[in-house]
Amino acid sequence: MTYPNPLRFNPAYSVVKQYFVHLDDSVPQKIVVHKDSPRGVHFRRAGPRQKVYFNSDEVHACIVTCGGLCPGLNTVIREIVCGLYHMYGVNKILGIDGGYRGFYSKNTIPLTPKVVNDIHKRGGTIIGTSRGGHDTSKIVDSIQDRGINQVYIIGGDGTQKGAAVIYEEVRRRGLKVAVAGIPKTIDNDIPVIDKSFGFDTAVEEAQRAINAAHVEAESTENGVGVVKLMGRYSGFIAMYATLASRDVDLCLIPESPFYLEGEGGLFEFVEKRLKESGHMVIVIAEGAGQELLAESLQSADQKDASGNKLLRDVGLWISHKIKEHFAKNHKMDITLKYIDPTYMIRAIPSNASDNVYCTLLAQSAVHGAMAGYTGFTSGLVNGRQTYIPFNRITEKQNMVVITDRMWARLLSSTNQPSFLGPKDLAEAKKQEEHPTGLLDGENCKEDHQPGHVGTMFNSSALLGCLNCMQ
Amino acid sequence: MTYPNPLRFNPAYSVVKQYFVHLDDSVPQKIVVHKDSPRGVHFRRAGPRQKVYFNSDEVHACIVTCGGLCPGLNTVIREIVCGLYHMYGVNKILGIDGGYRGFYSKNTIPLTPKVVNDIHKRGGTIIGTSRGGHDTSKIVDSIQDRGINQVYIIGGDGTQKGAAVIYEEVRRRGLKVAVAGIPKTIDNDIPVIDKSFGFDTAVEEAQRAINAAHVEAESTENGVGVVKLMGRYSGFIAMYATLASRDVDLCLIPESPFYLEGEGGLFEFVEKRLKESGHMVIVIAEGAGQELLAESLQSADQKDASGNKLLRDVGLWISHKIKEHFAKNHKMDITLKYIDPTYMIRAIPSNASDNVYCTLLAQSAVHGAMAGYTGFTSGLVNGRQTYIPFNRITEKQNMVVITDRMWARLLSSTNQPSFLGPKDLAEAKKQEEHPTGLLDGENCKEDHQPGHVGTMFNSSALLGCLNCMQ
Amino acid sequence: MTYPNPLRFNPAYSVVKQYFVHLDDSVPQKIVVHKDSPRGVHFRRAGPRQKVYFNSDEVHACIVTCGGLCPGLNTVIREIVCGLYHMYGVNKILGIDGGYRGFYSKNTIPLTPKVVNDIHKRGGTIIGTSRGGHDTSKIVDSIQDRGINQVYIIGGDGTQKGAAVIYEEVRRRGLKVAVAGIPKTIDNDIPVIDKSFGFDTAVEEAQRAINAAHVEAESTENGVGVVKLMGRYSGFIAMYATLASRDVDLCLIPESPFYLEGEGGLFEFVEKRLKESGHMVIVIAEGAGQELLAESLQSADQKDASGNKLLRDVGLWISHKIKEHFAKNHKMDITLKYIDPTYMIRAIPSNASDNVYCTLLAQSAVHGAMAGYTGFTSGLVNGRQTYIPFNRITEKQNMVVITDRMWARLLSSTNQPSFLGPKDLAEAKKQEEHPTGLLDGENCKEDHQPGHVGTMFNSSALLGCLNCMQ
Amino acid sequence: MTYPNPLRFNPAYSVVKQYFVHLDDSVPQKIVVHKDSPRGVHFRRAGPRQKVYFNSDEVHACIVTCGGLCPGLNTVIREIVCGLYHMYGVNKILGIDGGYRGFYSKNTIPLTPKVVNDIHKRGGTIIGTSRGGHDTSKIVDSIQDRGINQVYIIGGDGTQKGAAVIYEEVRRRGLKVAVAGIPKTIDNDIPVIDKSFGFDTAVEEAQRAINAAHVEAESTENGVGVVKLMGRYSGFIAMYATLASRDVDLCLIPESPFYLEGEGGLFEFVEKRLKESGHMVIVIAEGAGQELLAESLQSADQKDASGNKLLRDVGLWISHKIKEHFAKNHKMDITLKYIDPTYMIRAIPSNASDNVYCTLLAQSAVHGAMAGYTGFTSGLVNGRQTYIPFNRITEKQNMVVITDRMWARLLSSTNQPSFLGPKDLAEAKKQEEHPTGLLDGENCKEDHQPGHVGTMFNSSALLGCLNCMQ
Repeated sequence: MTYPNPLRFNPAYSVVKQYFVHLDDSVPQKIVVHKDSPRGVHFRRAGPRQKVYFNSDEVHACIVTCGGLCPGLNTVIREIVCGLYHMYGVNKILGIDGGYRGFYSKNTIPLTPKVVNDIHKRGGTIIGTSRGGHDTSKIVDSIQDRGINQVYIIGGDGTQKGAAVIYEEVRRRGLKVAVAGIPKTIDNDIPVIDKSFGFDTAVEEAQRAINAAHVEAESTENGVGVVKLMGRYSGFIAMYATLASRDVDLCLIPESPFYLEGEGGLFEFVEKRLKESGHMVIVIAEGAGQELLAESLQSADQKDASGNKLLRDVGLWISHKIKEHFAKNHKMDITLKYIDPTYMIRAIPSNASDNVYCTLLAQSAVHGAMAGYTGFTSGLVNGRQTYIPFNRITEKQNMVVITDRMWARLLSSTNQPSFLGPKDLAEAKKQEEHPTGLLDGENCKEDHQPGHVGTMFNSSALLGCLNCMQ
Repeated sequence: MTYPNPLRFNPAYSVVKQYFVHLDDSVPQKIVVHKDSPRGVHFRRAGPRQKVYFNSDEVHACIVTCGGLCPGLNTVIREIVCGLYHMYGVNKILGIDGGYRGFYSKNTIPLTPKVVNDIHKRGGTIIGTSRGGHDTSKIVDSIQDRGINQVYIIGGDGTQKGAAVIYEEVRRRGLKVAVAGIPKTIDNDIPVIDKSFGFDTAVEEAQRAINAAHVEAESTENGVGVVKLMGRYSGFIAMYATLASRDVDLCLIPESPFYLEGEGGLFEFVEKRLKESGHMVIVIAEGAGQELLAESLQSADQKDASGNKLLRDVGLWISHKIKEHFAKNHKMDITLKYIDPTYMIRAIPSNASDNVYCTLLAQSAVHGAMAGYTGFTSGLVNGRQTYIPFNRITEKQNMVVITDRMWARLLSSTNQPSFLGPKDLAEAKKQEEHPTGLLDGENCKEDHQPGHVGTMFNSSALLGCLNCMQ
Repeated sequence: MTYPNPLRFNPAYSVVKQYFVHLDDSVPQKIVVHKDSPRGVHFRRAGPRQKVYFNSDEVHACIVTCGGLCPGLNTVIREIVCGLYHMYGVNKILGIDGGYRGFYSKNTIPLTPKVVNDIHKRGGTIIGTSRGGHDTSKIVDSIQDRGINQVYIIGGDGTQKGAAVIYEEVRRRGLKVAVAGIPKTIDNDIPVIDKSFGFDTAVEEAQRAINAAHVEAESTENGVGVVKLMGRYSGFIAMYATLASRDVDLCLIPESPFYLEGEGGLFEFVEKRLKESGHMVIVIAEGAGQELLAESLQSADQKDASGNKLLRDVGLWISHKIKEHFAKNHKMDITLKYIDPTYMIRAIPSNASDNVYCTLLAQSAVHGAMAGYTGFTSGLVNGRQTYIPFNRITEKQNMVVITDRMWARLLSSTNQPSFLGPKDLAEAKKQEEHPTGLLDGENCKEDHQPGHVGTMFNSSALLGCLNCMQ
Repeated sequence: MTYPNPLRFNPAYSVVKQYFVHLDDSVPQKIVVHKDSPRGVHFRRAGPRQKVYFNSDEVHACIVTCGGLCPGLNTVIREIVCGLYHMYGVNKILGIDGGYRGFYSKNTIPLTPKVVNDIHKRGGTIIGTSRGGHDTSKIVDSIQDRGINQVYIIGGDGTQKGAAVIYEEVRRRGLKVAVAGIPKTIDNDIPVIDKSFGFDTAVEEAQRAINAAHVEAESTENGVGVVKLMGRYSGFIAMYATLASRDVDLCLIPESPFYLEGEGGLFEFVEKRLKESGHMVIVIAEGAGQELLAESLQSADQKDASGNKLLRDVGLWISHKIKEHFAKNHKMDITLKYIDPTYMIRAIPSNASDNVYCTLLAQSAVHGAMAGYTGFTSGLVNGRQTYIPFNRITEKQNMVVITDRMWARLLSSTNQPSFLGPKDLAEAKKQEEHPTGLLDGENCKEDHQPGHVGTMFNSSALLGCLNCMQ
């Protein structure tokens, strides 16, 4: 790679000059339709616009990464930098060091194509990250004082809520600053989008732990391998890792309640499976069985710096419970091995598929900000890059729908009990009908004044609520 | 994993009994829409149907794999077997040994959940494969003689054409045999579907070769690393591997013509890049530059057993050409290393993401056949599992649209010349407008008689052309 | 691979018929010599003998694996089976299921070349393992009752002690049964031998955990990554993994005492390193700092089934101590991530280097037993395969000599304090002089009667104490 | 890692101050002994000496890498730099760019611990390499002009011969310049030493290609997988990769002649194996069967820049021959897949085991040069680091002894024919007796004057021919 004069636009784009995205191009959120389905919510298609809001040499961009590690962070950083530089000739780009608090308490890191050239081959984030530290007023002060006019914020649910607040404050102060988010969640718990970056890599890497648990379990009599995977509120990693592996006998996720004792309970199933096969593998998402754990511990909720519940280690807890049960009842000598691969999964570089995905997300965000959109995240919806208003992805969480076919596939693959009573099913069914809280044909409830959430700066000419496209 | 009585249905599905797929559920092929877009082609959504056509104990299924290896073949085989067994209680399943010709010239392999339990961790196909060998009449004789009533055919373009012919012959003879295809193409060159299984794994594995080429090139003065990747008619693997890697300076694919000599030619670019960076990496799809190669060789087309053009090794050819050019002109001493990782890519087991994808494809095919559909392939369309009539995926090939944004992203990433003149652009533009040959609002040209392509057996009750859904 | 008639000897060996190992061939234990060094202990060189004690069709062999998992177990099993079969035409080989107790409480598993053909590609042990369960009299009863005359015992320190007792009992009863050990210890804590099988693989796999800890630490302010590695009494894995990685700032092993508080203590070093670099990685062997931990916990020793001290988890303990220290003193906000990759390391298949090594160990054991040696283990000494009497490898443990140059290299690489006072050094120095408890020129203290430890059955003709070779 | 004041010696070594290597410590080359074996050749043990010849601040070191890539080059570079800096406080270290010719035709690259900190995680060599370019007089001029007094030369056979010539010229000119070699040969064809760095990594990586060949072969009828591995004159990689894999049916190496046609020939064996198993895998070293190939091609020898014979691609040749044979005789339809993983193997980073090994080699070289030794390479002999005079490793090549037990193990593992007649055996036997051309008790033929090969500068005090130690 060589780096041409940044002020000379990359000739590549001249090839497709006449193929810019139409302003009206949109992607429906719901695409499984009946003959007479009404049209539902649509999102604006992402991509380069013919009219660019910013002059390249006036752009002063910054990038910040918040929250826990996730494979692909460095690729997103790299591609924002390279996208701004190669596609738009922008060369004033800062990395904010160490998450939100870096805006006001630390020095920034100049980012150039050369600096970021190889970072996609490394895990972690070269600009550092932290939880919490969100002080809206200090952050916007810093943005204003440094003359920053494009802010790229990479982070999860809490971080994107913070981004929405920054966006509101920026608008209140009347600053011409584009605020763009790139949703990051290794748990895949952000709604609307097809999947989050790093998820594929995490599921792939989780196979190692499951394989190891399987080998350990198989090599002893009544061997039980327990693997804890990420997933505070949603069990996607556990579910996909289980489906991909085929060596798992029981997958426990936050969305599917279970109980330990008695008929149809977990202990009974473990005993049954051990008698049938001589060994078993259990995958448990970190947020599964929290009520049981809470009962056990009678402990009050605690919050960590980002506001997530500080979950006690459910993997250690369930391992202890199982060992205790079988020891107490002298029914069986079991050998249980517990594996927690969390940090080994979070810290690896993204795989090829996530690398390409991160590239698209980063470039979409760059195209959006350059075109003058603000208050949005870039996201893949039904296989297409789109712009999604902040509120759409922060108001709910994406969760495994346990009455849906993917979970049924898992049940069929593991042959595990569903642990569900009729009440659970009714509740789960309700959830399925509106998986992301969006109704068919739902009307946009936004206020379509210029400068509103998801609009463009010079909205008189270019218009548009990103949400309903009116 | 233990295997329960096959005749007792898996209880997992009772959970979702009331959530079977609606018969009218469909997925549009084109989802980027304008406000007033007409409705275009839709495909039937895949999934379990409330009414099942076959009795489990009457089912006699067979599976055949044809053509070259592709990561995920064994996973598809495993999941058809396990899907039939665990979801529908079917336990008469045969593997046809060694591709189409195995129907009439070899013994079959009994497939049970136990036999296939671990095969997804291995590359290749446990039932063997071959090219060609398609003798319709002998194959349908064998199906009839053995009393087979579900045929699962895994293979590429040519194989699916063969499946369509088998389907026609089955229908002509009035047999109650469901013929289901699962499209296999490591090149991702099958139209309509989002991507083919094994593609992700192939792109991932290609990174190794590109990394090696990069290291070799970087370690010598004027080092050139050349990597040949799969892609006879479409350059998807080369394009995605290049995008994922970021170490590639030039990516050559069949869809984008190029020339060697003169201004703006390949040699000029190589020389320029070597002068700038001291080294470079070239990725070339096996089908790139065929006209140039043909000119060079003045050779007539040759066909291999499956009917593909026997392509001369373009990687060796381009390596030779580049070395010859720089030797002849004494301009530069270059060191060129050529890597052909083809068989190392084809033969690896599928990664986690492809494992899950293969599961969905296999289960969709099983649900379709059990419900009485025939003459279809299962495929992912806009992120949803659907049933696609054979003709839709065999009439065209999926190709990289070089005026589209993904190719523009690549050009921007490599900073390579587009090698395109105005005529090339005009032609490419035409292609983009109808990338898979399907027009918006295109009318179904099928004949809607019962028993027609893509209909169900007992169509009086359940009806329906899979294509236009009338 | 195909399997010829077992009674027809493999023609391969006829090639080297005239190159059998000389009976007197020996390998010195100590090879760094001065001009006038006396000759020290030598071990008999392993390899095929011209005179074979057993008739192939009379051999009834069994294999047992005991203790924790270690990469390579399956390769050793495979190569004993294939070695007996292909080299000597032996085809009565049993796997004892689940460790020592399998001799009397479980069924055996028939082992053939076909059964073991692919097992070296899998982690774990296909014949199962367990701790403890050693009941000498029941085991020898079972050997006698089943007519077994070759016993291959794969296991660690405790297991080899058990093997020695079995050997004594076999001899007491006057049975013609060869008892051969293959030392297994992922910790590399068995003396005399160059290294144990699986060690290389373990060090390689440990790199993943260290990399992850490094990425986690680097990505936050004052990030501390802690990795616990195997090593109850000896820190070889921790030391080699640290040397191989170069990302480690502090390596703690059982052999090198350390202290937490005060000047020159661990807390001070952590603080200093964080101030210098902003992050750090600590590798700790599971047996390090046991006295400190014991003080902390004031807990009595507990024993597990194999007799090892039940060590409390030192990784959790040190992580807790460091967090507590920095929280208490408000000096620094640190972020500490703890990774325990133990089971993921133990359960992987052996790498190529260990595969070859396991082959040599297994074949050496087979040659020894066939030649009529008994009461020995096979082991690599100074790069040569040898036979070592049981007592030599069970009387002491191999430990890192902290005054030796390998540990000095580590100190130089991590730049960590040595934590050593003059008393520690004096003690350590003593240890170095006789690292495995064997003095130069030490005389053999064995009784050289026929049938003694390490002799051959028909010792009148072939003679020889394996130890001193008199 | 932080970098302390280079002039302050690393405190680590103070710990072992009193444990420096004795000047008389030596390691015998031949350690398998009989009771009355004479003492043979011994090499000086490597390690830090109490008396250091150079003052740290006077040292001006340079490093050069020559020849083809090999895993571990960057680790060796890193450890020479870090060893000089951390252990001896040396901070003037240059990288010579692009091999020998870089001394006089290119700029140098300043090397500091910071520059080399992460390079061991990358394949290749950061200072570039090339073949040939050895102009003794220009090189020594450059050494003299730049004031360099320590030269570290990393390369193979040809390179070490070049180093010997540089050493002679340096001595002729009376320069106080230490010339130290580190032998590099991925083929493991350098004599005396136990194995070369990168070899383990290469054997490991070769498994991928063999696995792929096996999968391809297994998946078709009469499938033949052919893998070409490195090994111009010696077949170690092919032999070890075959032993580690167990999926290989035929391994062909330069040391073991074979023939194609007729009884007992290769074609017959291929046919037999295909009939038995339906598929087979052939591993061929690049230098195997050169005479047959030469006959085929009737081509004269050609030389490449380093003087190696330019070998025609034996893998393509044998693949062609086998296909031609079976096509011509219509005996069998075979499907042959040829894989050449050479550059993918050479270019990967070294594994953990090689990383540690490279560290020892580099540190040994540094200790030797600092102590005033010159004209030597560092090398592992019988598991101990030693100093070996140049001539000992350049006068012969290490080759697989086909009458030795390792090759017998391979024959036993693959069950392949030995292709050997009585004449071949006699010749091979001769070779075995003196595998590296060194006789037991051989007298040193060197001239023991001060300044001679393998002596120290101030030899009056410190004495010693590295060879015979007189």
